[in-house]
Amino acid sequence: MSLVTLGSAAYDTLDSPFGSRVRALGGAGVYASFAASFFTESRLIAVVGEDWNPEYSETLRSRGVDLAGLEIRSGEKTMSWHGRYPADMNRCDTLDIQLNVMDGYRPTAPEAWKNAPYLLLGNGAPEADMSLLDSMERPKLVIADTMNFYIDNAREALETLLRRIDGLILNDGEARQLTGVGSTLDAARKILEMGPRFVVVKRGEYGALWMSESELYLVPSYPTSKVVDPTGAGDSFAGAMMGVLAEAQDLTPASIKKALLYATVVASLNIEGFSLERFRNVRREEIEERVAKFRESLVY
Amino acid sequence: MSLVTLGSAAYDTLDSPFGSRVRALGGAGVYASFAASFFTESRLIAVVGEDWNPEYSETLRSRGVDLAGLEIRSGEKTMSWHGRYPADMNRCDTLDIQLNVMDGYRPTAPEAWKNAPYLLLGNGAPEADMSLLDSMERPKLVIADTMNFYIDNAREALETLLRRIDGLILNDGEARQLTGVGSTLDAARKILEMGPRFVVVKRGEYGALWMSESELYLVPSYPTSKVVDPTGAGDSFAGAMMGVLAEAQDLTPASIKKALLYATVVASLNIEGFSLERFRNVRREEIEERVAKFRESLVY
Repeated sequence: MSLVTLGSAAYDTLDSPFGSRVRALGGAGVYASFAASFFTESRLIAVVGEDWNPEYSETLRSRGVDLAGLEIRSGEKTMSWHGRYPADMNRCDTLDIQLNVMDGYRPTAPEAWKNAPYLLLGNGAPEADMSLLDSMERPKLVIADTMNFYIDNAREALETLLRRIDGLILNDGEARQLTGVGSTLDAARKILEMGPRFVVVKRGEYGALWMSESELYLVPSYPTSKVVDPTGAGDSFAGAMMGVLAEAQDLTPASIKKALLYATVVASLNIEGFSLERFRNVRREEIEERVAKFRESLVY
Repeated sequence: MSLVTLGSAAYDTLDSPFGSRVRALGGAGVYASFAASFFTESRLIAVVGEDWNPEYSETLRSRGVDLAGLEIRSGEKTMSWHGRYPADMNRCDTLDIQLNVMDGYRPTAPEAWKNAPYLLLGNGAPEADMSLLDSMERPKLVIADTMNFYIDNAREALETLLRRIDGLILNDGEARQLTGVGSTLDAARKILEMGPRFVVVKRGEYGALWMSESELYLVPSYPTSKVVDPTGAGDSFAGAMMGVLAEAQDLTPASIKKALLYATVVASLNIEGFSLERFRNVRREEIEERVAKFRESLVY
């Protein structure tokens, strides 16, 4: 089934111990829609400025991502971000961020996508997420990714959004920040009281968990030392997870587990290169091979 | 098959946010041999002073732990430890430790145990571990647990010991300390170069991993918020793991995975009460029930 992803398309400037890139392809929407495209029909809603590099659109189209929802606004500039990873890569310092055309963006769905059954709201402003939701029939499954900035600066809107979605996906630091609760499990439980019927907590090198009122699923991270650029790891996790669920068309334990497994593997491939340099050359068979190898490592 | 465990039997005085205990039953050897007893014939080698509480021996005997290797030395005092857990329980501060009768302890195996096939060297001085090894025929499988104190203060002896054992078990902080390497995977690889043919790294709330030259297994921790007293979690993990392996009598992937699964569950039961208060009332069926529940959560 088709999946609509709302999220940023941006220019990323990166410094990491492994090198640097200037105005590379980035943005939560880009990573997520690309990751989803391995599993399902993937559609992106985003806005960029007239400085947008058309080759970057081609990277997405090469995997079949439908860009009918990509708005190119003349007279405006694309969002840009500059991040630096320190030697141990265990955090990222934002040196500069320019929202540009994303500032105040209130998206609506293209007419043909208004009844899309699967929707991923990727890491943007809660007001933008709700603007898109308002323009659509209620999709069968809506998952939102959120981040520290909106927890601090758009809390009320975020809390309203939480009552309109099925699932929230966030990292453990954000779960603590949102709930004020230290334990990941307790924080996840508290998030369930805030609206979503399930929550997915990403724990970086320690994997991820999925919790609903009656279910809990745990997946370790894929064991790799080959981390070149963690940018987009969480977005590609969310995109792949949602892609698998859109393909499965249900939320049975088997589908959820499969989604978590593939999401972990896809995120591990993404971080092996800067921007989408590694990701864009990934073949589906490569994902399957890595999934098979990962499974051998998993205790059950 | 029978498993011999060498490790401390001690008086633990504990302060945690959930209460406190004075001179409760503790010690790595106690936790480990108790945990192993659910799965295999469990034998303990330890030394205590004349102040040893015979009721504590009964606790071990009630689970069938063979105490023929427990030496009670007159004129001496039992090792004692005083630890405090802060509000978030994420570390333990040692307020006082008295080695007493453990100081300079150089154990030998009772005659009947000299050809025991499975040996767990539990968190003691490397010199003590080697003294015991010298007194035995080389067991089929020897695993040593180690801790920060010996990495700092008995490094040379520890490095010698590493060349005489099959597997090392330690937590991620200790793996970093031993190797000077930050990434858990890289640290584990480096430990394999130091002698052992496999290494098990415990990562607290994030689970554990087993690595050999050609294998890697990952297990998340059992999801619980009910942590009353984490003392002995690592020891009971090691004891249960070794107990399952002694019962399986092989190191096939299936046996290793089973060992990691049960070790995780047994450790999770232990930390739900002070000292062995919860642990001593655990029934084997309770372990099986929790294993079944845990398996439902595991992605594979």
